[in-house]
Amino acid sequence: MGGDAGAPIVIAGAELALRRLSGIRFAIYGTDTIVEPLLDAHPTVKAASTFHHCEVAVGMDEKPSQALRHGRYRSSMWRSIEAVKTGEASVAVSAGNTGALMAMSRFCLKTVADIERPAIAGLWPSIKGLSIILDLGATIGANSRQLVDCAVMGGAMARALLGIPRPSIGLLNIGVEEVKGLEEVKEAGRILKAADLPHIAYHGFVEGTDIGKGTVDVVVTEGFSGNIALKTAEGTARQIAAYLREEMSRGLMSRIGYLFASRAFANLRKKLDPGQFNGGAFLGLSGIVVKSHGNADAPGFASAIENAYKMVTNGLQQKIEEDLAQSHRSPVGAA
Amino acid sequence: MGGDAGAPIVIAGAELALRRLSGIRFAIYGTDTIVEPLLDAHPTVKAASTFHHCEVAVGMDEKPSQALRHGRYRSSMWRSIEAVKTGEASVAVSAGNTGALMAMSRFCLKTVADIERPAIAGLWPSIKGLSIILDLGATIGANSRQLVDCAVMGGAMARALLGIPRPSIGLLNIGVEEVKGLEEVKEAGRILKAADLPHIAYHGFVEGTDIGKGTVDVVVTEGFSGNIALKTAEGTARQIAAYLREEMSRGLMSRIGYLFASRAFANLRKKLDPGQFNGGAFLGLSGIVVKSHGNADAPGFASAIENAYKMVTNGLQQKIEEDLAQSHRSPVGAA
Repeated sequence: MGGDAGAPIVIAGAELALRRLSGIRFAIYGTDTIVEPLLDAHPTVKAASTFHHCEVAVGMDEKPSQALRHGRYRSSMWRSIEAVKTGEASVAVSAGNTGALMAMSRFCLKTVADIERPAIAGLWPSIKGLSIILDLGATIGANSRQLVDCAVMGGAMARALLGIPRPSIGLLNIGVEEVKGLEEVKEAGRILKAADLPHIAYHGFVEGTDIGKGTVDVVVTEGFSGNIALKTAEGTARQIAAYLREEMSRGLMSRIGYLFASRAFANLRKKLDPGQFNGGAFLGLSGIVVKSHGNADAPGFASAIENAYKMVTNGLQQKIEEDLAQSHRSPVGAA
Repeated sequence: MGGDAGAPIVIAGAELALRRLSGIRFAIYGTDTIVEPLLDAHPTVKAASTFHHCEVAVGMDEKPSQALRHGRYRSSMWRSIEAVKTGEASVAVSAGNTGALMAMSRFCLKTVADIERPAIAGLWPSIKGLSIILDLGATIGANSRQLVDCAVMGGAMARALLGIPRPSIGLLNIGVEEVKGLEEVKEAGRILKAADLPHIAYHGFVEGTDIGKGTVDVVVTEGFSGNIALKTAEGTARQIAAYLREEMSRGLMSRIGYLFASRAFANLRKKLDPGQFNGGAFLGLSGIVVKSHGNADAPGFASAIENAYKMVTNGLQQKIEEDLAQSHRSPVGAA
């Protein structure tokens, strides 16, 4: 029911995903008067789905506490998360209110093992391909132990989703020299270096410029700076796109140039389309919840479903639990 | 002596600045064997300068403590800052090692009035024009009082440099809802709202996407997230430029398009050239120190000199001291 455009995008996205992924089924939670006509209009989705009417739909502007109060147990958001808990679903995908989705996911699924809190991990396009960055804002601030947990979980996601056997991990900092930065970040660096975990290759500190360069496969930071980095990059991309549009429409020569190079511009737009790397994941809970961008279109929502599918089929949850256990057993990692 | 290319850029930049700014004079600090031949090659700069040979030049890779130890009192960096203290110069401009420059500036110039620490403020191009952002990494973390001081100093810089009579101020946060974010940021917001200072218009929280949009004239944050935001934006801009180069050189049609639209691309490059908004300022000390980007070329260094000139002629230091005093007198601002 969530996202800027609501259920139509979700059902249309499900149809696109169905064409590419064989054998998947959907458990769909929402308001019957809205979703049932959409299912009638998309018979292939209807045939592959079980629909559950829910009395409550969480609004995009509700505060997490408010959403929990009136939406717990009975909202479509809650029930889609609960389906992961009961095993009815392998993974939940939602375009809804991020704060409410995280609050409900924590409340319903609880954190795994002895981890203190979950993180939001996102895909970030770089010159070299895709990277993973976390935490994008699940919580503010992090101690060294929490940063190390993020490194381990991000590494598991890079293995499951990007197919990198031993992903490189960088800690986001304000300088690459070992003397700089937050005490917690420095401590996390010392732990990761000493622990030398089997499934991740600790690279060292990285700076903001390294994210787009693809210096590492996984960028680890606490939620405040991670969220600022993500949104600043989005803002910069939009700003440059606006400059480009303005310049290409100014004067006849530029417009002719634009026509000749239209395929190049189409490719550029594709590279910058956030839909293609849609699907942030909540990691560190007893199940995976995938958050689609609120303004994703149907192909974007389909990408979120496909990413969720890959996470499940490549055993992300199991990898996270095993890797965390291994890291916590390590005498250094447990410090 | 600093910057990636050293003294040649500085002297060539000084020559460019001299052509545009009448009546300025330079006090130049550096190694005689390097600088004197450059001055001979640039007679107009030589005629407008006093040259002071210094025994020590701070290296770009020295740690601040190391630079202070062997460069205090006698390095070209120290002596250029000291010239501001003694009144021999109105402002110092350096392309040198940022950490060392900040350490020496703090040690030599000391903070003004009852301010706790300085900040690094930079110019940020937005869709609407130029904005100011601070702190870009002078210190990590900030309490509400320090954030309010940054708001006041950034406001003074926007008045002096951008000519905005009552600049709008935004506090960088991870959501615009009042419930979100760091406690210190929320408290700073309450103080700024209640104080309603005469020279700044408090806007509220802004997110990373708002920086490039130009939602506010001044974006305030603590140094860790400010540095991450700046470098992430730089990285994103370079990434998109690389995509664009790649796409425009792929295939004959795109190359023809590029030729037709070459002026548009030149304009875009100009808009994204960091040289044109070069010149971060150290604010909150008893004098202004301008930091030119280490990889600036001669026109970029000239921009830093021109910005420094504007800061001086428009009384930035006096505005900062007056505005801080006014803010600290306010019963709310002093809270």
